[in-house]
Amino acid sequence: MKKITHSLFLFTILSCTSNAAVNDFCVADLKGPDSPSGYQCKPPNTVTVDDFVFSGLVAGNTTNTFNAALTSAFVTDFPGLNGLGVSAARLDIAKGGSIPMHTHPAATELLIVVEGQITAGFMTPSAVYSKTLKAGDVMVFPQGQLHFQVNSGNGKATAFLAFSSANPGAQLLDLLLFGNSLPSELIAQTTFLDVEQVKKLKARFGGRGIDYS
Amino acid sequence: MKKITHSLFLFTILSCTSNAAVNDFCVADLKGPDSPSGYQCKPPNTVTVDDFVFSGLVAGNTTNTFNAALTSAFVTDFPGLNGLGVSAARLDIAKGGSIPMHTHPAATELLIVVEGQITAGFMTPSAVYSKTLKAGDVMVFPQGQLHFQVNSGNGKATAFLAFSSANPGAQLLDLLLFGNSLPSELIAQTTFLDVEQVKKLKARFGGRGIDYS
Amino acid sequence: MKKITHSLFLFTILSCTSNAAVNDFCVADLKGPDSPSGYQCKPPNTVTVDDFVFSGLVAGNTTNTFNAALTSAFVTDFPGLNGLGVSAARLDIAKGGSIPMHTHPAATELLIVVEGQITAGFMTPSAVYSKTLKAGDVMVFPQGQLHFQVNSGNGKATAFLAFSSANPGAQLLDLLLFGNSLPSELIAQTTFLDVEQVKKLKARFGGRGIDYS
Amino acid sequence: MKKITHSLFLFTILSCTSNAAVNDFCVADLKGPDSPSGYQCKPPNTVTVDDFVFSGLVAGNTTNTFNAALTSAFVTDFPGLNGLGVSAARLDIAKGGSIPMHTHPAATELLIVVEGQITAGFMTPSAVYSKTLKAGDVMVFPQGQLHFQVNSGNGKATAFLAFSSANPGAQLLDLLLFGNSLPSELIAQTTFLDVEQVKKLKARFGGRGIDYS
Amino acid sequence: MKKITHSLFLFTILSCTSNAAVNDFCVADLKGPDSPSGYQCKPPNTVTVDDFVFSGLVAGNTTNTFNAALTSAFVTDFPGLNGLGVSAARLDIAKGGSIPMHTHPAATELLIVVEGQITAGFMTPSAVYSKTLKAGDVMVFPQGQLHFQVNSGNGKATAFLAFSSANPGAQLLDLLLFGNSLPSELIAQTTFLDVEQVKKLKARFGGRGIDYS
Amino acid sequence: MKKITHSLFLFTILSCTSNAAVNDFCVADLKGPDSPSGYQCKPPNTVTVDDFVFSGLVAGNTTNTFNAALTSAFVTDFPGLNGLGVSAARLDIAKGGSIPMHTHPAATELLIVVEGQITAGFMTPSAVYSKTLKAGDVMVFPQGQLHFQVNSGNGKATAFLAFSSANPGAQLLDLLLFGNSLPSELIAQTTFLDVEQVKKLKARFGGRGIDYS
Repeated sequence: MKKITHSLFLFTILSCTSNAAVNDFCVADLKGPDSPSGYQCKPPNTVTVDDFVFSGLVAGNTTNTFNAALTSAFVTDFPGLNGLGVSAARLDIAKGGSIPMHTHPAATELLIVVEGQITAGFMTPSAVYSKTLKAGDVMVFPQGQLHFQVNSGNGKATAFLAFSSANPGAQLLDLLLFGNSLPSELIAQTTFLDVEQVKKLKARFGGRGIDYS
Repeated sequence: MKKITHSLFLFTILSCTSNAAVNDFCVADLKGPDSPSGYQCKPPNTVTVDDFVFSGLVAGNTTNTFNAALTSAFVTDFPGLNGLGVSAARLDIAKGGSIPMHTHPAATELLIVVEGQITAGFMTPSAVYSKTLKAGDVMVFPQGQLHFQVNSGNGKATAFLAFSSANPGAQLLDLLLFGNSLPSELIAQTTFLDVEQVKKLKARFGGRGIDYS
Repeated sequence: MKKITHSLFLFTILSCTSNAAVNDFCVADLKGPDSPSGYQCKPPNTVTVDDFVFSGLVAGNTTNTFNAALTSAFVTDFPGLNGLGVSAARLDIAKGGSIPMHTHPAATELLIVVEGQITAGFMTPSAVYSKTLKAGDVMVFPQGQLHFQVNSGNGKATAFLAFSSANPGAQLLDLLLFGNSLPSELIAQTTFLDVEQVKKLKARFGGRGIDYS
Repeated sequence: MKKITHSLFLFTILSCTSNAAVNDFCVADLKGPDSPSGYQCKPPNTVTVDDFVFSGLVAGNTTNTFNAALTSAFVTDFPGLNGLGVSAARLDIAKGGSIPMHTHPAATELLIVVEGQITAGFMTPSAVYSKTLKAGDVMVFPQGQLHFQVNSGNGKATAFLAFSSANPGAQLLDLLLFGNSLPSELIAQTTFLDVEQVKKLKARFGGRGIDYS
Repeated sequence: MKKITHSLFLFTILSCTSNAAVNDFCVADLKGPDSPSGYQCKPPNTVTVDDFVFSGLVAGNTTNTFNAALTSAFVTDFPGLNGLGVSAARLDIAKGGSIPMHTHPAATELLIVVEGQITAGFMTPSAVYSKTLKAGDVMVFPQGQLHFQVNSGNGKATAFLAFSSANPGAQLLDLLLFGNSLPSELIAQTTFLDVEQVKKLKARFGGRGIDYS
Repeated sequence: MKKITHSLFLFTILSCTSNAAVNDFCVADLKGPDSPSGYQCKPPNTVTVDDFVFSGLVAGNTTNTFNAALTSAFVTDFPGLNGLGVSAARLDIAKGGSIPMHTHPAATELLIVVEGQITAGFMTPSAVYSKTLKAGDVMVFPQGQLHFQVNSGNGKATAFLAFSSANPGAQLLDLLLFGNSLPSELIAQTTFLDVEQVKKLKARFGGRGIDYS
């Protein structure tokens, strides 16, 4: 009988074990190198359902300087997200706590409030968009915008976050400005903050990050 | 000293007369036409914080044929999502209910279980990836894959969904196959189902959709 | 006068010592790992014209359960397609045959009929779009939509397919539902098919795929 | 009965006629304006199957200066392609004819030979990739590359083309250089062609295009 | 004579004036609505070379609070950029001046120094990347990163900027934090700045922007 | 109080042990393989500010056949550009010199004139868009269009170029047509140039490139 090659249906009918990977997914091989489009794919025959499930989007420990915790399910936690342009996180904010001003350089954030009351907002050069949210409210923070979330209620607050990136990052403004070794005078010059204020916050946030200059 | 407000930085300090629409966001004008990249933007000066907030991601009514409800926060519900590549939904499944086999043709789905127990999975031509999930578990269903969610617990189940599209759609297999006017014989021929089975399900799901042929 | 060859224009005339990989193309190194954007590129100096040519988009053997054959020229067959977002296939359907209901999770399909008569269509939750096509007709099946093709003529039918992806995949509904180890009761619950029908088709399509759960 | 809003399933079960467009597709409204992502979508309730079918990818008239015809099924011919990133064409080349040097500025081309013999190729600054193709051969011309197709056989040649764009354009080198009102001296200076050669070809190809300078 | 339709070559040979727009470009109609992919295209027959040329990337007036000027050539200034993913600007910084901390939410920036000395940098949560640059140096600030530029030389400094977006925006941190109506206490809570510092800078930068809450 | 440094915000405060590569950037490892989305990322801890700075966008040597020099800052020169979709170059054209007809297959080009006078243009099949530019003028050449730049002034001319790709390439028409081993008769047939003209230019531009056929 004549051999038939390149025939998709025979291929699938025979549930061929070929590694002729059809990119139905590309689970990250986190030990390999990253690239602008994400990590290399694990060989399909080593992929299991556990690559597509992340367990642990549970309440974080809010006993810290922010009285808040952000538990992430990003591609580095959850390799099945690789190349799929979406990720999630859980936000817990104790009474009086907040997620201070921050950005996600390359991702839009959705905030889904499930418990308590959160006052959240983002700013553009000409306006501030802020609102007090309760369970069942969803707010969107467009890509790269500086935004904040404050527990403005009387108890703890909980939310889930969705991001338009498998690896959204999170850049806390205080760490960017005060967590590294930029000279205080340079920070003051480029922020118009008083030098004393800068030094005070450098003392709080470290001010000894790596200086590549 | 003169105060500087509403200033798109130095640009407008200079003589630039442009009204300087910076695309920090593009809130959908849902009354205008759609395009492959989304809806037209509302004029920025008519945008308010309410465009960025959706209220109502609350428990849906599960008294229906599926014993389940999917409450969406897609761009058509929530114009601030336009062009941002992400959306959300809430899933409620009563005991014994399920979200039957379906696809989102152009979106990956994240399922975040918050209450109860859900057995979920997706299939490729060579494998099935399914797991029983509990609160705190997240599962990803890669773009375009056929998948299902079943309440496999003893009480109700609740989850939030995130999608990698502002308008993910949802195509329930039974509606695609049996909710329209495709002749039963043609459905049988292209699914290998028995004609009697097809007719039975057409009776259940309508079989009276629009026939553009 | 000195001749100038192999020159990336003025760049290399100048002192640039780079070996100047200009991404005019990125032929897949199919032995290397895949990534969300495709395979790694073969070193440009090992690329030959044969990487850009695929021979064998010829009539497939239609002596099978579908009376049809799909011969593919996807990136896994044809490494020059890597990263270029397009691929092709040839479809042969014997009299009475069909390509049953299927999806390409991340690709739009164009069907170019070259011989015979094909009745084809796709369904959304609210409508069916189907038509009987003859030589010279082209039909588009938008990304991720469930669709079918039936030889509705008196002889064989032939078509070429173009896809908006270098690796479109092809997910035959029967294989997704019945070709794996999902329990019959779960399939029945999530499709509303009768369990007997499910068991009958599992017997036909294998029902012995890999179960990752 | 209690009204349920934002519930997708009830919505679809009732085959709701809402224009709450889920972007399963976006058929071009060719009378409306174009945008960088394509044309505006026709209202979904005015879409019919004929928007997804193009009839007429048949043999073109090769009685012209090239002894060749390119019959296109681009979005401007075939509105269902809007936003889907793929299109097609048919190529007929009479004996001795050719498709001269040309580019598609933003699209990769696949050439599927179905009859006769075609010698085709593309060039980079450091190499030429050319081959003589026969029925069943497919060749890819990566995005933006200058390429050509010559009927090198003894009879007519026929091929189908697929493009990685809904609107690939086609820029014939002779028309770019000689079909417009660029001064002959400027063309000569920027191509190193002799002025007499330029004038000869301007006479042939018109040299009366629109001059926006 | 037989009419030939859909034939690209006859079409172009006859330098047809058809508005059968091939998207070689999409010049913005700035009076029409914007969309996530950019502005609508002007009708091709109204486009002139002046749509592709911007005049005025000249020295800006640096007599202002920053001793600096940023002159932009963004799509709102230069409609030919629409949909093309690139734009430019000119930066002039008088001695002692600076471009304070700012982000471009959706664009990477290239800084090409042409005169004087500029100390520039960007910060991530774990490091600062800064350097003193002179004429002929180019520095890249990846998408969405907080960055600054200071004239650290003895005379004026001049640079050209290129962005990976037709409309990169520019969000000056001081305007985001202090140029609007966010309550001082909320700013203090979410930045860890002292309230007095916040009030001082609100006085300087306006603090009366639009409050959408 | 305990200081917090090197902290990816709350994530790492919590128990997350991930080494948390957040893709704030992906500096190219130029020794590794390329992919359709660019090079693999260098390990973040080996990245320094020098990866984000390119020194040498200075005047090139114009003593060559074109009296012109193009000095590039592309990803192969400047690894920090990897994945960021933008690059730069410097153009120097001596009096009487020119950058002959060329394309960038996958990039739009912005030309920023800083000194002298340049006449530049691009052509479509139906029009030519050309203009004489002086310092402060910017012109855009949309992706894949054939274009040229001529020094039309009385002294040298200088410009900076920005591209919408990290690796735009540059394909000089004369090298494509005459710098390789395509047979003169085939070039003549597919360009309508006289064979003598072809042979003359092959003698000038080499005509001995690699022939992969």
